[in-house]
Amino acid sequence: HNVISSALLTMSLNPCCYYPCDNGGVCVRFGTDRYECDCTRTGYYGQNCTIPEFWTKVRLFLKPNPNIVHYILTHFQFIWDMINNSFLRDTFMRLVLTVRTNLIPSPPTYNSKYGYLSWEAYYNHTYYTRMLPPVPEDCPLPMGTKGKRVLPDPKMLVERFFKRRKFRADPQGANLMFAFMAQHFTHQFFMTDYKLGPAFTRGLGHGVDAGNIYGETLERQLQLRLLKDGKMKYQLVNGEMYPPSVADVPVYMQYPEDFPTDQQLAIGNDVFGALPGLGMYATLWLREHNRVCDILKADHPTWDDEQLFQTARLIIIGEIIRIVIEEYVQQLSGYHLQLKYDPALLFKEQFQYSNRIALEFCILYHWHSLMPDSFLIDGDDVPYSQFFHNSSLIFHYGIEKMVDAFSRQPAGQIGGGKNFHPMILRVSEAATKHSRDLRLQPFNQYRKKFELKPYASFSEFTDDKEMAKGLEEAYGHIDALEFYPGLMLEKARPNAIFGESIVEMGAPFSLKGLMGNPISSPEYWKPSTFGGQKGFDIVNKATLKRLVCLNTKWCPYVAYHVPRTKEEARPRQPSTEL
Amino acid sequence: HNVISSALLTMSLNPCCYYPCDNGGVCVRFGTDRYECDCTRTGYYGQNCTIPEFWTKVRLFLKPNPNIVHYILTHFQFIWDMINNSFLRDTFMRLVLTVRTNLIPSPPTYNSKYGYLSWEAYYNHTYYTRMLPPVPEDCPLPMGTKGKRVLPDPKMLVERFFKRRKFRADPQGANLMFAFMAQHFTHQFFMTDYKLGPAFTRGLGHGVDAGNIYGETLERQLQLRLLKDGKMKYQLVNGEMYPPSVADVPVYMQYPEDFPTDQQLAIGNDVFGALPGLGMYATLWLREHNRVCDILKADHPTWDDEQLFQTARLIIIGEIIRIVIEEYVQQLSGYHLQLKYDPALLFKEQFQYSNRIALEFCILYHWHSLMPDSFLIDGDDVPYSQFFHNSSLIFHYGIEKMVDAFSRQPAGQIGGGKNFHPMILRVSEAATKHSRDLRLQPFNQYRKKFELKPYASFSEFTDDKEMAKGLEEAYGHIDALEFYPGLMLEKARPNAIFGESIVEMGAPFSLKGLMGNPISSPEYWKPSTFGGQKGFDIVNKATLKRLVCLNTKWCPYVAYHVPRTKEEARPRQPSTEL
Repeated sequence: HNVISSALLTMSLNPCCYYPCDNGGVCVRFGTDRYECDCTRTGYYGQNCTIPEFWTKVRLFLKPNPNIVHYILTHFQFIWDMINNSFLRDTFMRLVLTVRTNLIPSPPTYNSKYGYLSWEAYYNHTYYTRMLPPVPEDCPLPMGTKGKRVLPDPKMLVERFFKRRKFRADPQGANLMFAFMAQHFTHQFFMTDYKLGPAFTRGLGHGVDAGNIYGETLERQLQLRLLKDGKMKYQLVNGEMYPPSVADVPVYMQYPEDFPTDQQLAIGNDVFGALPGLGMYATLWLREHNRVCDILKADHPTWDDEQLFQTARLIIIGEIIRIVIEEYVQQLSGYHLQLKYDPALLFKEQFQYSNRIALEFCILYHWHSLMPDSFLIDGDDVPYSQFFHNSSLIFHYGIEKMVDAFSRQPAGQIGGGKNFHPMILRVSEAATKHSRDLRLQPFNQYRKKFELKPYASFSEFTDDKEMAKGLEEAYGHIDALEFYPGLMLEKARPNAIFGESIVEMGAPFSLKGLMGNPISSPEYWKPSTFGGQKGFDIVNKATLKRLVCLNTKWCPYVAYHVPRTKEEARPRQPSTEL
Repeated sequence: HNVISSALLTMSLNPCCYYPCDNGGVCVRFGTDRYECDCTRTGYYGQNCTIPEFWTKVRLFLKPNPNIVHYILTHFQFIWDMINNSFLRDTFMRLVLTVRTNLIPSPPTYNSKYGYLSWEAYYNHTYYTRMLPPVPEDCPLPMGTKGKRVLPDPKMLVERFFKRRKFRADPQGANLMFAFMAQHFTHQFFMTDYKLGPAFTRGLGHGVDAGNIYGETLERQLQLRLLKDGKMKYQLVNGEMYPPSVADVPVYMQYPEDFPTDQQLAIGNDVFGALPGLGMYATLWLREHNRVCDILKADHPTWDDEQLFQTARLIIIGEIIRIVIEEYVQQLSGYHLQLKYDPALLFKEQFQYSNRIALEFCILYHWHSLMPDSFLIDGDDVPYSQFFHNSSLIFHYGIEKMVDAFSRQPAGQIGGGKNFHPMILRVSEAATKHSRDLRLQPFNQYRKKFELKPYASFSEFTDDKEMAKGLEEAYGHIDALEFYPGLMLEKARPNAIFGESIVEMGAPFSLKGLMGNPISSPEYWKPSTFGGQKGFDIVNKATLKRLVCLNTKWCPYVAYHVPRTKEEARPRQPSTEL
């Protein structure tokens, strides 16, 4: 009897493989072949949560198309200049924050093991969370019920659609200073734990915890700290402060085998020895932390090392968030609305001050197209082979010249595909494989989850006819297109770095993480948290330029975009005033 | 030079030892002898945050005295009966929830190591959080600047003021069913990690995670699970389900050395072998979990063990919260307002769905006065010596007779002191010592933090003249009275189980934990979370009586209070209908 009923179970198709529940409804399988959609608080009802309630209809009627909103936000500079100088700046900023962050479930929901709500998924922080459950294990096809029986070969995919033919610069003008910031900033929370597998993270802070500066574990932090005056350990080279060498501070850093330890830099994040651009940011934040400690100690001579360290850390976290919102996100958004880090904007809103990093956000942030063909520093053209793991470049050029060079060299465009440098193509291949292992739902399912219209065809998805044809052959159906290639290959918006989906899905994750940080909460956002008004001012005045120029001997050209004006393009040198 | 300045630092008094900042202002020490109060968003300004802003004045004018509110809530039954049957029940319940929970900082703030905000205190869940920072290390007196140079001997304190002379029953009628519930329920989140010290907890779920049923660690959970149909392991005795023996399921349980393992019960929480009352609840929840699994499996034959287990666990958590709010808190509050677990009440409010257990809450919950002089079961008078660790009583009497007995026997009054059974006096002594080691601020500081008027004298604090005199001699000043004795010895409210402070401080912690559970969030509170409408109904209909009577052969008298009516007092027996 048991054998027969097991056989019956196996034979009847899991109805949730059809993704029958729309608009955020939750599919629950009943019996063997029935399902129910839980439409609670989706604003829809009916068997598949497809019928809008009255107020949903009103909202849908009023809700503008995201491409139109984007167009408005990136045009009409004159009007935005007026808005930016009026109370309307706050109004629009609040609107951006609430509309975006409301899309992120909080408390978090699923993970790669649990496609249903559970205490374990809520409690176990070693997993990345997930917006959508995995494709059920027992579906007839890899992506559910549509597409081909076998997914396309990842190697073929990346060779044909990801690989760069000729460098395409970002039309919005992002530079390598931006590219390395993206990498440095995000690797404090994207810390996939490959020992456990791609579903797991070592970044248990799940957000902006500055673990990339201080070390993700307490043990590593204590090794990196000077344990005096709140400061981090450092080495002096030509009288300037740099991260200490691994020979002096023996923390684990990922360098090639036999790489001399006195040439390895000891940094919070163990992968940051890979690129001098990361070592540059590590140096800047190290100097900034120790500078802040001096300022705190002058005001608070009675504080012990611990209080100086902890308070400086909160100031650094505040600086990071401000620079990321007001300059980094400003750059990548291309908005004329001047973005603002002002936690008080949300103090009257319903907002959860907590965050869990999502696997989808991690996959989405594979922006390796930003990387150039080679690195142009102080008149030299440095190829990848001389750049990887070559921390000596930081000492050779010094921070000033590196910042100047990276700020002038354009980064690559991401939307549209075919812009991944061959050196880093293997990362795309791995991301494709991991996404499959973890059974991510199709790209169009995520479009719907983020309230975007699913694409009807590959030719709607991309303007590149050859790519549309190739993807159609590879996947068989637009609804079977995978999440990761979907994000990376989608046509870019006009004159933009990204396609629609990366922005409309990435912005919610990003803003939720930045504003969900505890320092942005009413309980924390006050001068005493930062050691008094002086520390609070450091947070409130933080800019990329101050980060660099308060910690260097001369002030290079520094921005997240290539020079736009004559003044910006003007060469800088050691005599440049601070 | 350094020696001199160090000496100066030591000589100048830390001004924060005076607790100069009122109304939640944060004291920050500047230089050596200056301080600043951060009054941000306290509603007050001025050097010490003492001057109310306009709207604060209005609020203060309108805010009723908590004793008057308590009086109204516990009198005028007739009016409350009408309110309970109208929409006003929701209005008042929402008010209770918001007013109480708004007193709890969320995200959490300090802990026993960090008397200032820090990432480490936010991130490190092994600490209990704290509402108020510890008394600064460098204060001239143990409690700051007031009181005696040496705190009174803990042994003297408990002997003189805590020890029971004659059993005083709770005037509100709480019974032993209530007392064991208090212990069983709270030990899922009060799990002091004595290996690390009294500042730390093993209860990393920091709330209602049912870790007392399933084990706090994943390893323990997997040992306790049957790993089939979602169920927990069990043993059958006389055809009835009980927790398995440690001989069969070798998890660590705290029993006396050489206690035979076949007489040890294997339960989620390792201290629950101590009292048969805890074993009784463990048995009831075990049966309930396995009962729920059967119901889920009937609806979802395709679900694997994991999904059945996890979904049953969420249902059990929901049942616990409902029973605690609607019956347990109802009993201890004595309110005529009929309390209601309805998460939707907060869906339009600003509320953080997260929780961190506070050290102060743990100290406050030392309700050992509830315990009787001996246990009256089925005509037997069982002394402590035969009760401790005697799991065989559960099998001997069976669940029905234990529930009936515990529901009929009154628990002790807590307020007013002098009601701790000598057998458990050492617990009070330990709590006093731990509170000192962890430098808890004075009782009156906590009164202020919870918006209560600080006591002006010991004779205002207690009506017991001898106690007032003794405490005055022991502490020297009412502002130096310690937190723990303050809570336990304060005069009880008229005809009440508690004094004012335990209620006004305990209720916020309690309700924040219950409503801050993820299942109470809009993201989780829907039928699919509980496997569909049937599971959701189990949560929504949960009562103590259903917990007992759906899992026993006959239905005993069961409540959190001793019988109040003839019907309740009527003897029950095996023939009683279910």
